[in-house]
Amino acid sequence: MNETIQNLKAHVSVRAFEDTPLSDELKDALIQAAQSGSTSNFVQAFSILEITDPTLRKQLAEITNSAAYVEKTGTFYVFVADLYRHAMLLKNNGQSIEGASNTEALLVAVVDATIAAQNMAVAAESLDLGICYIGGIRNDIPKVAELLALPDHTLPLFGMTIGVPVHKNETKPRMPRSNQVAENHYPKEVFTDFSQYDAQLTTYYQERSSNAQQADFSTKMAEFFSVTRRQEIAEFLKAQGFELDK
Amino acid sequence: MNETIQNLKAHVSVRAFEDTPLSDELKDALIQAAQSGSTSNFVQAFSILEITDPTLRKQLAEITNSAAYVEKTGTFYVFVADLYRHAMLLKNNGQSIEGASNTEALLVAVVDATIAAQNMAVAAESLDLGICYIGGIRNDIPKVAELLALPDHTLPLFGMTIGVPVHKNETKPRMPRSNQVAENHYPKEVFTDFSQYDAQLTTYYQERSSNAQQADFSTKMAEFFSVTRRQEIAEFLKAQGFELDK
Repeated sequence: MNETIQNLKAHVSVRAFEDTPLSDELKDALIQAAQSGSTSNFVQAFSILEITDPTLRKQLAEITNSAAYVEKTGTFYVFVADLYRHAMLLKNNGQSIEGASNTEALLVAVVDATIAAQNMAVAAESLDLGICYIGGIRNDIPKVAELLALPDHTLPLFGMTIGVPVHKNETKPRMPRSNQVAENHYPKEVFTDFSQYDAQLTTYYQERSSNAQQADFSTKMAEFFSVTRRQEIAEFLKAQGFELDK
Repeated sequence: MNETIQNLKAHVSVRAFEDTPLSDELKDALIQAAQSGSTSNFVQAFSILEITDPTLRKQLAEITNSAAYVEKTGTFYVFVADLYRHAMLLKNNGQSIEGASNTEALLVAVVDATIAAQNMAVAAESLDLGICYIGGIRNDIPKVAELLALPDHTLPLFGMTIGVPVHKNETKPRMPRSNQVAENHYPKEVFTDFSQYDAQLTTYYQERSSNAQQADFSTKMAEFFSVTRRQEIAEFLKAQGFELDK
């Protein structure tokens, strides 16, 4: 097993950083990594905004409920699933923008943005930095779009906070392979049998060094999905020009 | 710059592999890497199917128009954005499945599946293997779902072919940073000014060692988006129980 794979396996989300800004050289490496990933048909349907303005960072920290690690960190990026460039190019050519607006187009942009982000995460962790995806920017997605001056055909997908960790938790045990990986056909019963995983996570949650608790996968998920989250995203995407009925 | 970042920057999609199957040890490392990535609120909303059955591989190769590198390769995985487990768990609890069905839930699952896939890609490339994302499984998404016996609340997102490369192309120049990365606010005019990139890609397409052609970014995108692709995905997602109007 090489160092890259060891680092991938050692991933934990970090939520406590030193207050030191990352150097330009370091951020340069992170951006290059992000831009080098695979992209569907070379469309490169994403953008990256680095949030350097302290007021803006504070506003985003409030929206995301993550002040401790969005404001105090090395840097904070927002990843945007982005078909604005393509839509503009098509409009300027007098072409239909339908192909840059439908559900397929949105999937392409979300996948492209995520590949870029995960490359950045891997690059950061290879340099002993810590990262955390900040899905909380979707807590108030119209406000985030307004704050960042996002045009139509864009979706602010998540933030990523990156810095020098002051604390790292233990890695969290992922699902047993039998729950998530199979050959050829989807095994409905095996994938939904959480008896082994629930037992494993019960022990993990009891014994972990911080925030120990009585919980397992099934109870965590039942609790998490008891609230329907972020119900304004469909409307937001429609207002942005996406047509998810197509 | 460390080796991990050098590898990320050296990424190219590979479409010609040796016919040698990957060892179990190797696939084990790839799966572990995929399972170790970040996941929104620990939902782990993805599955991985390894396609080992030759008939099934052939059927998928036809759907994806990628016979040369889906059939002849080290292995072929399908990544599934997957909320079936969560929906079943909620149903068994007598809870509403709305939170596992709306647009937010789909985004979470697509992001989770992509983070896992990109971790696998990075792991593979760190071992000198080549990879190619196969978005072509979305060419006939209901058929793919049928072939893989996918239940509701799942979306087959892309395949990934992984093997020992017999040929690697040069890296393709990504957008200039000025087209894709900015501070704080989205710069609409700068991001859509492709004059520099078009000139750069014109040279690249003229001079590359295989399939040289007269093209640039603007012409490639105009051509690509002249056809509206994969128009049955919205209907498929609805049939799978996703509610993209919510």
